[in-house]
Amino acid sequence: MFETLKASPLFKGLETEDINSLINNSSHQIKQFSNKEVLAYAGEKVEKAMILLEGKLQGEMIDFAGNSLKIEEMEPPQMVAAAFLYGPQSVFPVNLSAISEGKMLIIFKNDFTQLLSADQRVLSNYLNIISGKAQFLSRKITFLSFKTIKEKIAYYLLQNFKTGNQVVIINQSQKGLAEMLGVARPSLARTISEMESDRLIKWERNQVEILDLKSLQGILGR
Amino acid sequence: MFETLKASPLFKGLETEDINSLINNSSHQIKQFSNKEVLAYAGEKVEKAMILLEGKLQGEMIDFAGNSLKIEEMEPPQMVAAAFLYGPQSVFPVNLSAISEGKMLIIFKNDFTQLLSADQRVLSNYLNIISGKAQFLSRKITFLSFKTIKEKIAYYLLQNFKTGNQVVIINQSQKGLAEMLGVARPSLARTISEMESDRLIKWERNQVEILDLKSLQGILGR
Repeated sequence: MFETLKASPLFKGLETEDINSLINNSSHQIKQFSNKEVLAYAGEKVEKAMILLEGKLQGEMIDFAGNSLKIEEMEPPQMVAAAFLYGPQSVFPVNLSAISEGKMLIIFKNDFTQLLSADQRVLSNYLNIISGKAQFLSRKITFLSFKTIKEKIAYYLLQNFKTGNQVVIINQSQKGLAEMLGVARPSLARTISEMESDRLIKWERNQVEILDLKSLQGILGR
Repeated sequence: MFETLKASPLFKGLETEDINSLINNSSHQIKQFSNKEVLAYAGEKVEKAMILLEGKLQGEMIDFAGNSLKIEEMEPPQMVAAAFLYGPQSVFPVNLSAISEGKMLIIFKNDFTQLLSADQRVLSNYLNIISGKAQFLSRKITFLSFKTIKEKIAYYLLQNFKTGNQVVIINQSQKGLAEMLGVARPSLARTISEMESDRLIKWERNQVEILDLKSLQGILGR
């Protein structure tokens, strides 16, 4: 278990022994789950920190017609519902169900708060996780206000563009970028190709050269 | 200053003396600002915790045509950019400028992390603030997926509706609700009136009686 935890964002930078002693000093449980088990329903109170150790979970929404819609897939050693443990609306935003058998580490909220106080590295890591979630959502909302994929890409590039440097560095995968912009990955790739054919940009791995700044700005000049 | 801080969400539940000793044990500054001063630009690294003590600030976006767009107004004793101090994108999401003269308390990030470790109440308060921000943004994204205000209201009510109880309790102001749904307050009020005329609901202060559940579900049955 501790090797898995060592790889988790929550325990980044800690040695196995440190994690071992932190966990063993706080009351915790290992919860086994079976495939298709529903672990929580949307709206239920989140009362414990959960770290996935084995198996896969998914967050799913049931719409009012009864259809299930997959929102997110979770893999070890990810924290589950990390940004919903504290706060005024600390309830599961979606149903949580297993898509394989597996197990997770559970620490109740009070014990988890004490664990955060006990080690500043774990505290910083947890603050990074939930702030990162808020930042991701904040950017996602900005991108939702643009209608076309071309506008979203232009906005993203101009936001990260620094005068005097033709090249914008992309610090995330194309999968992550597609998710943030709220578009499907093939559509993103297709639009990037179009913008390359139009000689607006040249996209190579994580570097994007701005070939025609004026036209790029023109896309947003509504 | 300590009386103002006592009213702030970060120091909720603490006595003035406790706040006094916590602040005096961590290195801090008081920053005075003048009206129209720009305190930070979008994209600049957030390196310190800021609590507004006097005066008003606003977050504003400058679009690519150079127009300024007000996003948010901040008042004492609010924390400024609380969810952007940690995390992988810990930069100001918008420009921060003063709309009156005033002052704020500044604590650098490392000292702030130590302060959080030093008092579990402050830690819980801060976790509540940033988790609340993530939760607000997460719900806002859900509502952005609905086109009409009627759909947004129906979804909100059905989400909070519990079988066997005709009345849904609204745990936020109409201003907060309008902001979360992403609609103007007068439009929200108008649509609520329409839904009352149609005898779908009866909205009284923070209690909404569901008169016609089937029709309410029908609004979303697309």
